[in-house]
Amino acid sequence: MTSAAFDVLGIGNAIVDVISHSDEAFLGQHGLVKGSMMLVDEARAEALYAAMGPGVEVSGGSCGNTMAGVASFGGKGAYIGKVRNDQLGGVFGHDIKATGVSFETKSATEGPATARCLILVTPDAQRTMNTYLGACTGLGPTDIDAKRVASAQVTYVEGYLWDALAAKQAVLKAFEAAHAADRLVSITLSDSFCVHRYRDEFRALIRDKVDILFGNEAEIKSLYQVDTFEEAMEATRKEAKIAALTRSEKGSVVIKGSETWEVPAAPVAKVVDTTGAGDLYAAGFLFGFTHAKPLAECARLGGIAAAEIISHVGARPQQSLRSLI
Amino acid sequence: MTSAAFDVLGIGNAIVDVISHSDEAFLGQHGLVKGSMMLVDEARAEALYAAMGPGVEVSGGSCGNTMAGVASFGGKGAYIGKVRNDQLGGVFGHDIKATGVSFETKSATEGPATARCLILVTPDAQRTMNTYLGACTGLGPTDIDAKRVASAQVTYVEGYLWDALAAKQAVLKAFEAAHAADRLVSITLSDSFCVHRYRDEFRALIRDKVDILFGNEAEIKSLYQVDTFEEAMEATRKEAKIAALTRSEKGSVVIKGSETWEVPAAPVAKVVDTTGAGDLYAAGFLFGFTHAKPLAECARLGGIAAAEIISHVGARPQQSLRSLI
Repeated sequence: MTSAAFDVLGIGNAIVDVISHSDEAFLGQHGLVKGSMMLVDEARAEALYAAMGPGVEVSGGSCGNTMAGVASFGGKGAYIGKVRNDQLGGVFGHDIKATGVSFETKSATEGPATARCLILVTPDAQRTMNTYLGACTGLGPTDIDAKRVASAQVTYVEGYLWDALAAKQAVLKAFEAAHAADRLVSITLSDSFCVHRYRDEFRALIRDKVDILFGNEAEIKSLYQVDTFEEAMEATRKEAKIAALTRSEKGSVVIKGSETWEVPAAPVAKVVDTTGAGDLYAAGFLFGFTHAKPLAECARLGGIAAAEIISHVGARPQQSLRSLI
Repeated sequence: MTSAAFDVLGIGNAIVDVISHSDEAFLGQHGLVKGSMMLVDEARAEALYAAMGPGVEVSGGSCGNTMAGVASFGGKGAYIGKVRNDQLGGVFGHDIKATGVSFETKSATEGPATARCLILVTPDAQRTMNTYLGACTGLGPTDIDAKRVASAQVTYVEGYLWDALAAKQAVLKAFEAAHAADRLVSITLSDSFCVHRYRDEFRALIRDKVDILFGNEAEIKSLYQVDTFEEAMEATRKEAKIAALTRSEKGSVVIKGSETWEVPAAPVAKVVDTTGAGDLYAAGFLFGFTHAKPLAECARLGGIAAAEIISHVGARPQQSLRSLI
């Protein structure tokens, strides 16, 4: 393994978040399941947007948030994701590059607009997400530069990519390129409904290819179709090489073979918006991992990043994560 | 004077803010004057954006912020301003309508893009603004519906409109329509550099047409080319019918003929971003004024709205202003 130009290369759905506050009643009126991510088509996205309150637009996308976090820790990151050459695509590209992450994926010059995620934050700080994938559906294997992948210590992808047509092929190509260069690959399960949609594929991928698995309690229980976290841990232990499982205020658990590390959550004065908690946990963990930290320290860094992100509205860090460690 | 469909009708530059944090050095490197608004062309806007850190996009525009504030108090508002039919234009239109403000101005279908204001917030919470007017330069007299103007108790405009070619004619048409219907008209001086650009016109307008004048200490001193606030007050008293002058943490002063009301600022736990302080002061004042409150109470409501807006990033209220009074 030669020295790496990048610590982490991320592949994800390139999305601009539209964040708005709503009450619980709004979710009910529009048939939304609190805390989950739902895919919506353009017409539904427009109808929902028309009904929503005023919004704030911030670059998002699960993996994009993670990469912004890696950069905020001082890590070297690269990102692959597809926007259109429209205004929101310009916003996404500007923001990820402005964090210091290398982003060279060609924008689509035709077809659907840059993806948007309509996020409703309820008074309990939970976020309910409605994603119009738009240009993300254009991401495919031709967007994967094998040399670029080979130049990163870890390639990290989001489970959400399975929703974006050719993106799965892009991921598989990247995983091949990474392993061919003796690099590691990592995936987040993204969302329990996403796990439900692609359970068998995800399980096979984790058994056969994935080096580091990220998931929260609901996702890992859905993956192994078990009722308790303890059962999920044991199933994970059998199938995953390294797994970092997050449990909100209970912190996280790292599993590797017969070993287990339980790491408490970092303290948070006030939880304002949980959007991006998992994304930033992965950022801290991967930053630590690619800087040769022990797994428990990786988990602790993940917790620090997650604590910063849930203390304000929006899923990109508002202060230097490096300054927090 | 018949009963009014709207409390306040606002006319302004319809702008989407792009808010980013920066240090003082960045301002120096790019020749920016802290605390001021500078007009930039498209090329300069793009160069500055490329150099800026990650941003948050929020609907803005001085008068748009004021109207969102009026609506947040529970007032009935209408807004006139020009965007293009592009993504940021869609964001602006959505947001102002989502606050409850009536907005029917036709979007431009060609020409420059929706206006953007690149706002750099320094660690001292001051904002430095760089505005690309874009589609705003298309606002003109044909966008003014005299009946709509006549249906509002007060027509409120921003001095910044003088920068937007035909917008001045639009304002003059609106003022005529308002006075023809026995309604009142109001203007904010917007910015001391803006006052410098249009001093003579503003002074004539204030003497001859304006019923309620808004300005801060720097602006009113620039308007009358005097060195002290006391001199500015006396000059204002001679030329303006009613003037509400803001002085940051010193609160505000309302002047009407020989009468003067000094109203202290509302307390703020931590000043995070002063963007929109003047806009929201005008919102509170005009809400009070159109609900028949005494002038001192109007100023107090202005102070409450300003305090809310400077306690967070962004120039649109994040909590119901009605709930604060």
